[in-house]
Amino acid sequence: MKKIGVVLSGCGVKDGSEIHEAVVTLLSIARNGAKAVCMAPDVELAEVNHLTGQETGAKRNVLVESARIARGDISNISAISAKDIDALVLPGGFGAAKNLCDFAVNGPNGKVVPEVQRLVREMAQASKPICAICIAPAVLALALGKELAPEITIGTDQGTAQAINATGSKHVECAVSDFVIDKKHKVVTTPAYMLAENIAEAAEGIEKAIKATLDLI
Amino acid sequence: MKKIGVVLSGCGVKDGSEIHEAVVTLLSIARNGAKAVCMAPDVELAEVNHLTGQETGAKRNVLVESARIARGDISNISAISAKDIDALVLPGGFGAAKNLCDFAVNGPNGKVVPEVQRLVREMAQASKPICAICIAPAVLALALGKELAPEITIGTDQGTAQAINATGSKHVECAVSDFVIDKKHKVVTTPAYMLAENIAEAAEGIEKAIKATLDLI
Repeated sequence: MKKIGVVLSGCGVKDGSEIHEAVVTLLSIARNGAKAVCMAPDVELAEVNHLTGQETGAKRNVLVESARIARGDISNISAISAKDIDALVLPGGFGAAKNLCDFAVNGPNGKVVPEVQRLVREMAQASKPICAICIAPAVLALALGKELAPEITIGTDQGTAQAINATGSKHVECAVSDFVIDKKHKVVTTPAYMLAENIAEAAEGIEKAIKATLDLI
Repeated sequence: MKKIGVVLSGCGVKDGSEIHEAVVTLLSIARNGAKAVCMAPDVELAEVNHLTGQETGAKRNVLVESARIARGDISNISAISAKDIDALVLPGGFGAAKNLCDFAVNGPNGKVVPEVQRLVREMAQASKPICAICIAPAVLALALGKELAPEITIGTDQGTAQAINATGSKHVECAVSDFVIDKKHKVVTTPAYMLAENIAEAAEGIEKAIKATLDLI
C-alpha cells in the first residue's frame, strides 16, 4: 500500500491546518487505496479564537493540535524521512503560512521550519511527488523556489502570486475545481479555499489533485 | 435551498466532535445541494491532549472550538429553533457523549444540555428529520427515548446498546457501511467510528445517512 505523508500545521483555518482541506485529503488518500502518514512539527502556534477571529495571546502546540485531525495517529515530522513515504501532501490554512514557514509575515523572504524544509527537499531530491493545497504552495516556493523553480498555483490572488514568483517559483492561475501539475518536478497544487466558496468546491479540486499526485508515484 | 442544522460539540474526537465525521457531514450536505447551519452550545469542555490521550486539566469552550470546524460560521444553539432548519444532524466524537449530554458518565440516567434537548424535541415535535452519527444517537436516546422510543444504532457494542435500550429507545445492530432509519420518527443513525477502521469506512455510512435524512424532508 502506498504511504502518503500529510503535513499538518495545527487544527483550524485561522491558526493551523484548514480542517476541511485536511480531512478531504485524508479521505481522498483512503479512497485511492493508499495510507496516510500524518505528521507535524513540534513548534508553537499563536492561538486564534475562531468565533471572533482574534488572536488570544495564548500559545498551543502544532503537533498536539494537529493530532486532533489525525485522531492521535501522528508523528513528529523530525521522525519522518523521504524513504518512509511515497508522496507528500501539505493541506492549507493559515498554519501553512504561519507555522510551517513565515510566508504570512515575510513573503518571498520567508524561511521554512527546518524539519519541514528538510523533508520537502528530500522528497524533491528523491523525485517523489509533492502536493500542496490552498496557501501551502508558498511553503514549497520558499523551500524549492530558487533551486527548482516549480510551477505552482494559489489560485488567482495577484499579491500572493507576485510573492510566489519572487521566490523563483512560477505562479500559474487555476480555477478552484482544477489543479496545476509540474510533471518535471512532480509538484501538484490546487487553490481550494484560496478560491472556494464552499466545501464542495474545495473538495473537487483536492480530490483531483490527490489522484494526480498518486498517479505520479 | 434546504437548511440542515449541524450540532457540533468541540473540535477533536477525544473531547469534542469527531472531525472526520463532522467534515464528511458538511461535505455530504453541500453535495446534496443543501446548506449547513452549524451550531454548538456555549458550555465548557475538559481538554484532552490528542497526542497523549490524557486530560490536561484545562477547559476550553465548546462553541469557540466548534467554530474551527465551521470556519467561524457558527451560531450558539440557543439562537436556533426548529423553524429555522429543515433537518438536524449530530456528528459523533466523545464531545457528543460528554459535552452535549453526560451519557459518557451517567449512561441511561444521563441528562442532555438543556438547549440541545430543546432543539431535538422541537425537531421531533415538528416531524422534521434528525440524523445522529457514531455515539451521538445516545443524545437522541436521552432526549427522546422515554417519550418516542426511536429505533437507533451505535453499531454493535453490547454495553452501549444496553444503555441505549435502558433509555426506552430500541437499539438495532448495523454495519459501518449502512444506516438505520426509523421512518415513523424520522430518525436516521449510522455507526461511523463506533465501528470504522478508517475514514473511508466512516464516510460511506455517513454519506448514505445524510442522503436518507435529506430525502425525509
